[in-house]
Amino acid sequence: MRLSRYFLPVLKETPSEAQIVSHRLMLRAGMIKQAGAGIYSWLPMGFKVLRKLENIVHEEQVRAGHIPMLMPTLQSADLWTESGRYDAYGPEMLRIKDRQGRDLLYGPTNEEMITDIFRSHVGSYKDLPLTLYHIQWKFRDEIRPRFGVMRGREFYMKDGYNFDLTREDALHSYNRHLVSYLRTYERMGLQAIPMRADSGPIGGDDTHEFLVLAETGESEVFYDSEITDLKFGDREVDYDSHEACRAVLDEFTSRYARTDETHDEAMFNEIPEERRRTARGIEVGQIFYFGTKYSDAMGANVQGPDGKSVPVHMGSHGIGVSRLVGAIIEASHDDKGIIWPEGVTPFHAGIVNLKQGDAEADAACDALYAGMVALGLDPLYDDRDERAGGKFATMDLIGMPWRITVGPRGLKNGVVELTSRRTGESEEMPPEAALERLAQIYAGHRVTSPL
Amino acid sequence: MRLSRYFLPVLKETPSEAQIVSHRLMLRAGMIKQAGAGIYSWLPMGFKVLRKLENIVHEEQVRAGHIPMLMPTLQSADLWTESGRYDAYGPEMLRIKDRQGRDLLYGPTNEEMITDIFRSHVGSYKDLPLTLYHIQWKFRDEIRPRFGVMRGREFYMKDGYNFDLTREDALHSYNRHLVSYLRTYERMGLQAIPMRADSGPIGGDDTHEFLVLAETGESEVFYDSEITDLKFGDREVDYDSHEACRAVLDEFTSRYARTDETHDEAMFNEIPEERRRTARGIEVGQIFYFGTKYSDAMGANVQGPDGKSVPVHMGSHGIGVSRLVGAIIEASHDDKGIIWPEGVTPFHAGIVNLKQGDAEADAACDALYAGMVALGLDPLYDDRDERAGGKFATMDLIGMPWRITVGPRGLKNGVVELTSRRTGESEEMPPEAALERLAQIYAGHRVTSPL
Repeated sequence: MRLSRYFLPVLKETPSEAQIVSHRLMLRAGMIKQAGAGIYSWLPMGFKVLRKLENIVHEEQVRAGHIPMLMPTLQSADLWTESGRYDAYGPEMLRIKDRQGRDLLYGPTNEEMITDIFRSHVGSYKDLPLTLYHIQWKFRDEIRPRFGVMRGREFYMKDGYNFDLTREDALHSYNRHLVSYLRTYERMGLQAIPMRADSGPIGGDDTHEFLVLAETGESEVFYDSEITDLKFGDREVDYDSHEACRAVLDEFTSRYARTDETHDEAMFNEIPEERRRTARGIEVGQIFYFGTKYSDAMGANVQGPDGKSVPVHMGSHGIGVSRLVGAIIEASHDDKGIIWPEGVTPFHAGIVNLKQGDAEADAACDALYAGMVALGLDPLYDDRDERAGGKFATMDLIGMPWRITVGPRGLKNGVVELTSRRTGESEEMPPEAALERLAQIYAGHRVTSPL
Repeated sequence: MRLSRYFLPVLKETPSEAQIVSHRLMLRAGMIKQAGAGIYSWLPMGFKVLRKLENIVHEEQVRAGHIPMLMPTLQSADLWTESGRYDAYGPEMLRIKDRQGRDLLYGPTNEEMITDIFRSHVGSYKDLPLTLYHIQWKFRDEIRPRFGVMRGREFYMKDGYNFDLTREDALHSYNRHLVSYLRTYERMGLQAIPMRADSGPIGGDDTHEFLVLAETGESEVFYDSEITDLKFGDREVDYDSHEACRAVLDEFTSRYARTDETHDEAMFNEIPEERRRTARGIEVGQIFYFGTKYSDAMGANVQGPDGKSVPVHMGSHGIGVSRLVGAIIEASHDDKGIIWPEGVTPFHAGIVNLKQGDAEADAACDALYAGMVALGLDPLYDDRDERAGGKFATMDLIGMPWRITVGPRGLKNGVVELTSRRTGESEEMPPEAALERLAQIYAGHRVTSPL
């Protein structure tokens, strides 16, 4: 993309309404614009990041054998009356009456609807196991929406639902989700720690939240410092293997890590003192096993191998996709702006032309641009007639992890400059070498299978 | 995908509530499930088609230089009061009150919101031309929702908005959209004819609707039969060239083609009688030029080259993405079921194993499956232990354009059978030849750039 043809309305001033750094930086970098209390428009660069996160989530869910679909944003109140949650959910549910006076609601989650789909179409254990998921806009009428997309009212969420014949199979589904979530967050450049949590209005016994450590997190967390040494890495896990998934769960949950809701001071004090940590965390996902809570209430039964009808065991599993954009920025920024991890950056590298209008510099930038596109990379070329300082500041603010600087002086020596946003280090090299380096850097960060 | 691991709840019975063929076939093929009046869940295969259409629309919009973003589903009533449309819109607008008593609405379109974004961030003619678009769920509270996704209440739409300094530039944007829409529909295997139409509540003078001819269309249309001979084909059009885009508009709109709203009997009768056609059409898109209607009302001005502040010239341009799924089926089906055009098919070919459990047949199917995946193709392998007749009927119902049939008898001679859904013709060939043929067939039908 050439900046002269893009819509990237960066702000010079720091907006006064934003209390936390991700909200400030998303506004300053022209990623979002508020449309109402807790409701945002995603401007082009914000949408690009959001879509990238969505594609990563899809790719990792499909890899785990989960099946994508899409449920609507509006739901009929009837199903929620059936499960007993219509009255129980409280004022955070946005209730709507249509022109015929029918009661609708803007879905905050989809347990009822997916259970209805399941019971309408599945009748035999032979169709199990089954995990369906979707990524869809949700609404929660927060009394005090704040922190930008971190605590908005209209938010984008992946929610998945597993249906299994037995508790044991359902716990495997739970573990499989944990594995797929660890992979997902790491691809996004995040360390998200699974912590034993409270199930809240979803219900159920087993639940883990995934928390990203950040000063601005809404939850207080307590953990054994050894847990931050764990990396999922590029290991291949057989998602069909109960043992393999269980082993990952054991590895990532055997050390103490809890939110304030479930914190146990006595257990915490058993950790050697030098490894005890108290910090704040941002919740970016949660997995639940709740057994037959909804299948009992709504009659979602299958015929087992013995011919008897039994309620299915279920769980639900969510990733806050729009909130993740904020969480990533909270975890990765400095005084100058955002620092995108390579896995989620909206553009792979910025190209800065130090002397726009200089024939040789323009041609070199055009060649770099074409070279990146030919490699399947997505450049952002600042081709505006502006001072170098302003161009650098913009690239830093919007978080380009790599920048290629092209100027007449370097070109005389046949070199351009490749700069890392994270370290600030620059290296001179011929344009071809810069392209090769970028290709290497991004080789492991491709979203290969669009849905 | 292996059918044994997929969720494809095909129905044997024809659902009685469905009045038109696309609605019946989408229910029978397990693509959708009704969630409420005019509100649908997209089951996995339905979602796959919807997502493919969405990706094609994105690809063609980006090719035309239009910039993707995303506005929320819910809007504040304030902006609509400012434009004067809040009261004018009538009962089709779904009005909502949140817990604080604020007036919201579920957006039926986004002229106000995009104009607000524009006026907040753009102040100079130097930032023009600019075209922003999004693909988002909309709601229109139809009094009688029907025909499945063809006339639902919650529907998925691409809507784009151009901002230009002059009327002439804005008409170029209009023409550019027309070109991009012609490309888009043809990639989807549709012939959509641009017809002069009425502007309705959007307002403005210039507007064309794109109509797909189908018996179940909601509009009566009148046209010169020569227009159906026009093909956009694989021509390359320079989207920056006013002349090139204008020439396409002239070519595709110079023959008489109108909906009943704008039909002129006298002009129609000037066409030679043998070329006069009356038919029915499904509206799948519409483009508008409405000048300064919204920029005047909402103060969306820019400073021109002479330093004077002038309102921008605007247009809006929509494609009904969810409705297109139904329209494609209306235009492409037979008694046995759907016939997907290659550009939009959810899977590229079905693999039918005539003797599941036979070691050789199973191995051959597995090899074909792996071969397709290696070619970047997406197979649907019916690996269930069912009779061949049932497997064929399912592949026909769900519209697989190509089917590879694998059985012990053929394998003895080293061949499998490749069958075209459209012609019904089968040809025996070695498995490698079938793979090569499929690669050729789909070479021109790739969605290459996920957003």
